[in-house]
Amino acid sequence: MKSLTLFIFLFFLVSSSAHPIGKKQRSPCKNLVLFFHDVIYNGKNAANATAAIVGAPEGANRTILADHFHFGNVAVFDDPITLDNNFHSTPVGRAQGMYIYDTKNTFTAWLAFTFVLNSTQHQGTISFIGADPILVKSRDISVVGGTGDFLMHRGIASVMTDAYEGDVYFRLRVDIKFYECWQ
Amino acid sequence: MKSLTLFIFLFFLVSSSAHPIGKKQRSPCKNLVLFFHDVIYNGKNAANATAAIVGAPEGANRTILADHFHFGNVAVFDDPITLDNNFHSTPVGRAQGMYIYDTKNTFTAWLAFTFVLNSTQHQGTISFIGADPILVKSRDISVVGGTGDFLMHRGIASVMTDAYEGDVYFRLRVDIKFYECWQ
Amino acid sequence: MKSLTLFIFLFFLVSSSAHPIGKKQRSPCKNLVLFFHDVIYNGKNAANATAAIVGAPEGANRTILADHFHFGNVAVFDDPITLDNNFHSTPVGRAQGMYIYDTKNTFTAWLAFTFVLNSTQHQGTISFIGADPILVKSRDISVVGGTGDFLMHRGIASVMTDAYEGDVYFRLRVDIKFYECWQ
Repeated sequence: MKSLTLFIFLFFLVSSSAHPIGKKQRSPCKNLVLFFHDVIYNGKNAANATAAIVGAPEGANRTILADHFHFGNVAVFDDPITLDNNFHSTPVGRAQGMYIYDTKNTFTAWLAFTFVLNSTQHQGTISFIGADPILVKSRDISVVGGTGDFLMHRGIASVMTDAYEGDVYFRLRVDIKFYECWQ
Repeated sequence: MKSLTLFIFLFFLVSSSAHPIGKKQRSPCKNLVLFFHDVIYNGKNAANATAAIVGAPEGANRTILADHFHFGNVAVFDDPITLDNNFHSTPVGRAQGMYIYDTKNTFTAWLAFTFVLNSTQHQGTISFIGADPILVKSRDISVVGGTGDFLMHRGIASVMTDAYEGDVYFRLRVDIKFYECWQ
Repeated sequence: MKSLTLFIFLFFLVSSSAHPIGKKQRSPCKNLVLFFHDVIYNGKNAANATAAIVGAPEGANRTILADHFHFGNVAVFDDPITLDNNFHSTPVGRAQGMYIYDTKNTFTAWLAFTFVLNSTQHQGTISFIGADPILVKSRDISVVGGTGDFLMHRGIASVMTDAYEGDVYFRLRVDIKFYECWQ
């Protein structure tokens, strides 16, 4: 009888220890807040620019963002990533990829880029894809893959425009929530 | 003896209940069929256009799709998504992103875009990437991420050209099969 | 007592068989080494070219890679994939997608493409995204999705420049390591 009692106890122990293994957790297994800084080339700031317009619809050029909410502009960037919102802080990596302005009657972008992190804290890459309705305070994009410290990670990132100066500079705050951490 | 029998029974119960946790299911956990409508800017339809050519190889312009199966054309789009194949149905969201014609001796595209769904039924985004051999009836692309109602979802989408009118309009039927649902 | 001993033995058996189900494995469940070959259009090699520059910053054209480490150049490609490093081997598929040169003070690219495999061995697609610090010997990008034989696969790919001839030809060796195989 004793052995049966113990058995039943252990049975539930096994059951309950088995469940969390496969069950999806709704809270992130890892969190990272990073900032990146985009300086758009406008024909005069070659030394400081970190992004350039490389595609535009017919009739538009590539030093002035196009009319109609920049619809059709494609920008390529290599932006410094910092731990705080200061452009002059020591970068912990680079945000590399592209954004495209994809709507003609409001400001909307589509993002595809990779964080290349290279600091004492983090070594590896995180890749993102998603729609960016710029005028919304916080918008979620997908974290679709990672390498190095972020091998096989997945999750989402909440993106916020932290600063914006004309058509030349913007700073994004990226709150990364990994739901799959692979550790 | 009884307790052993019970034990063995329970052992198999634990085993069999543990397995489905990690085992991949081959049938989708969620299914969605949606249509999206692409009206390519051709220099004359600015009011209706939902897509524009923004990249082209040297020698091509951006109001006429390039020769050689449009090889090298990059289009940016913001297309209405509907529940049926009617262009005039109330949109349930927007398909935003890009496609590139990437072959010089047949019609092939490469797709990267996000469904931004905003209806009473669905709130959230679904991001897609994949090769699109346009002349094949049904071609599969990857669902690489999701947010909102589609947080952490993954799967594939079978894409079919549902209608095609010259170089100006096409409609795609997208049969999304999620194999990871995270609920 | 005997039954208890057996029970405890079985308990650990269950525990240990349950763990691998959910636990991530650090060794790949599938491995593939493939090569692809990129011939960039330079205005003279239309017959052989498999890639074309379709985006460039203001002031650059699209038959010569731009100054400043090609910063801002966007290329679209449809490259043959082979099992070995011989350009003339029978292709087993096509690598289709884009790369962008995204840094102005070193050679760095950002990649987004799909392997469309069509051979007796493999039928299906594998999609990749990631940063490509070209001058680094081996760099990891993310495998973000798959279809067909690679349904729901995820992992990373180690990319190596296997050959490089001026600004016209390069060959990449791609060592794909799937950590999620879905079988």
